[in-house]
Amino acid sequence: MKQIITLATDFGIKDSYAGIMKGVILSINPDAKILDITHLVSHQNIFEGAIVISEAYKYFPKGTIHIGIVDPGVGSKRKPILIETDRYFFIGPDNGLFSLALKKERIKKAVHLTNKKYFLKDVSSTFHGRDIFAPVAAHLSLGKKPDSFGKPLNTRPQLIDMPEPIKKRGSIIGEVIYIDSFGNLIIIKRIRIKGISKTYVDGKKGLPIAVIGSSGNLEIACYADSASEILQIKQGEKVEVDIIQNLW
Amino acid sequence: MKQIITLATDFGIKDSYAGIMKGVILSINPDAKILDITHLVSHQNIFEGAIVISEAYKYFPKGTIHIGIVDPGVGSKRKPILIETDRYFFIGPDNGLFSLALKKERIKKAVHLTNKKYFLKDVSSTFHGRDIFAPVAAHLSLGKKPDSFGKPLNTRPQLIDMPEPIKKRGSIIGEVIYIDSFGNLIIIKRIRIKGISKTYVDGKKGLPIAVIGSSGNLEIACYADSASEILQIKQGEKVEVDIIQNLW
Amino acid sequence: MKQIITLATDFGIKDSYAGIMKGVILSINPDAKILDITHLVSHQNIFEGAIVISEAYKYFPKGTIHIGIVDPGVGSKRKPILIETDRYFFIGPDNGLFSLALKKERIKKAVHLTNKKYFLKDVSSTFHGRDIFAPVAAHLSLGKKPDSFGKPLNTRPQLIDMPEPIKKRGSIIGEVIYIDSFGNLIIIKRIRIKGISKTYVDGKKGLPIAVIGSSGNLEIACYADSASEILQIKQGEKVEVDIIQNLW
Repeated sequence: MKQIITLATDFGIKDSYAGIMKGVILSINPDAKILDITHLVSHQNIFEGAIVISEAYKYFPKGTIHIGIVDPGVGSKRKPILIETDRYFFIGPDNGLFSLALKKERIKKAVHLTNKKYFLKDVSSTFHGRDIFAPVAAHLSLGKKPDSFGKPLNTRPQLIDMPEPIKKRGSIIGEVIYIDSFGNLIIIKRIRIKGISKTYVDGKKGLPIAVIGSSGNLEIACYADSASEILQIKQGEKVEVDIIQNLW
Repeated sequence: MKQIITLATDFGIKDSYAGIMKGVILSINPDAKILDITHLVSHQNIFEGAIVISEAYKYFPKGTIHIGIVDPGVGSKRKPILIETDRYFFIGPDNGLFSLALKKERIKKAVHLTNKKYFLKDVSSTFHGRDIFAPVAAHLSLGKKPDSFGKPLNTRPQLIDMPEPIKKRGSIIGEVIYIDSFGNLIIIKRIRIKGISKTYVDGKKGLPIAVIGSSGNLEIACYADSASEILQIKQGEKVEVDIIQNLW
Repeated sequence: MKQIITLATDFGIKDSYAGIMKGVILSINPDAKILDITHLVSHQNIFEGAIVISEAYKYFPKGTIHIGIVDPGVGSKRKPILIETDRYFFIGPDNGLFSLALKKERIKKAVHLTNKKYFLKDVSSTFHGRDIFAPVAAHLSLGKKPDSFGKPLNTRPQLIDMPEPIKKRGSIIGEVIYIDSFGNLIIIKRIRIKGISKTYVDGKKGLPIAVIGSSGNLEIACYADSASEILQIKQGEKVEVDIIQNLW
């Protein structure tokens, strides 16, 4: 079956970890269509992984199986899980990695992966991506029912908190939740910005502007430059944005 | 339809931008075969993107759809375009990104993408890759005619200038147009080099040699080392190469 | 034919080299399924490439064609080869790149690639990946017999030496053969470590632990940290590990 399986991990792309997972999947379902969301989530940064997954998952066709692995607790008691929603499947560790995506989905079924029949023969304590998540995703892509893979999860899937921006008068106080590779800050020290711009091009080189980004969040950007470097702001910093000529 | 769609962008590979585009394409045409040329064009460096695309596009099968996105003008007045040549399709911003490739192709049709029917519902002003280029490519891969996507482009596609090397006597004056990840300089300060070598191995470690590279351009390389670091030369620098024992 | 072809190279992912190879393959066999193991083997580090390939190849389905390219000798007298084993095909330079994998496989056939009929028309002296290895792999994936591509290799495939760890009393003396992107050292200066841990999580932040990694090698890791940085150990360093409370 030509099911789509996506991968979002912190494995990096130098090592063969992601390639090994693809080999395991194709050994079980040679017709699976495997796509990388990213393998460059900052190592063991569950929050960042949750953001990346919540941005991307919803653009894939109904029925897509999303594997997410940012798993500092691998081999410990954290549970390997499979979540089925109305439109998608999510497979990975139960540590909040899917929680931002799940906020927007209706959960139909949550399974604790315990059925070793669908794991690789010798499950290591360090690489569940290869030994559990990849084979489970592959068997699921062949039509196996979610129930086959274990027992119902007896708790709610783990959640992580997402800092919400506070609006007061013409000002927004938020936290930089993500800095993309262009250096655009995705919500944000105290900065005065003139209105909300429509495009990046509206800015002069080196002057920060505010844009509603493609994911619907407030973004501070510098045209043809890195806002992160120019404003000296790091991920997680609290920032107040004054929109002087308020357009909201 | 199993059409091939390639992606060459400056999106980087940490963020989910490229993955999102793939999701959009597969939601429209689940059978599309999507291949990455690169997502690591230097941010907003149209010239570099044009080189990468012109090197790679021609090795793909006839009918391949090439999406190119290095788009500092996204959301401004620059036009989104679709170019059909005898053998390929090119989709992206009209800013010269395809001009080096188009020099070698015969243009059959140039379309200004204006038909919102084939865009995502809400077109952002910051991510046309997701909202315009990916869906247009996907519909094209399903057999839609180029004309369906808009109106004829009423100007010639934008061009960028490519610095041409000047040969005089035993010397070549050129500009470093590209430095690959091995540190090989692709055309080039004043360096004296003995003849044109046939292979990289002809060089001694640390001594620069000249090679006609796999793309037919002059390359300055250092065997098992980075010519860029050893000669302290950056992209765009003007360089004179003396081929002492001229073989040309 | 939907044959799987994998790529493991030191090409990097900024340049279009890997993308070009994929174009060449698909121009010959549009149905080939191409998967990246990695393109980030350290430039011209055959040893590292051999490790990566030997870790990953065996997880792919029987019949998979593995292309490996870390090729400092490209264009010199080193031979381009095709090795058929009971389960797989390996295509690349005869420089030891496949030797760690071949130790675990039974070689059925070793072919020196000399038949230009299956190469690209003009074979460059710098890019055999595009001109020889990609087209040979593509024709092989269409069902051509290994014999078609050249003559029997008249020597044994090149080998590289793999440093073996020495166990003496409660101590293991080894060499760091690989450092993964998490900074985990894969066999290893003199370090005292208390027993063999089962999971990474068993460690306290900043304290090294020993784990039998997912590939069966001894790994020194630091929970939620880089052992490579904390212990200041580089790849290739000789290291003695004292397992104090010996569990082996």
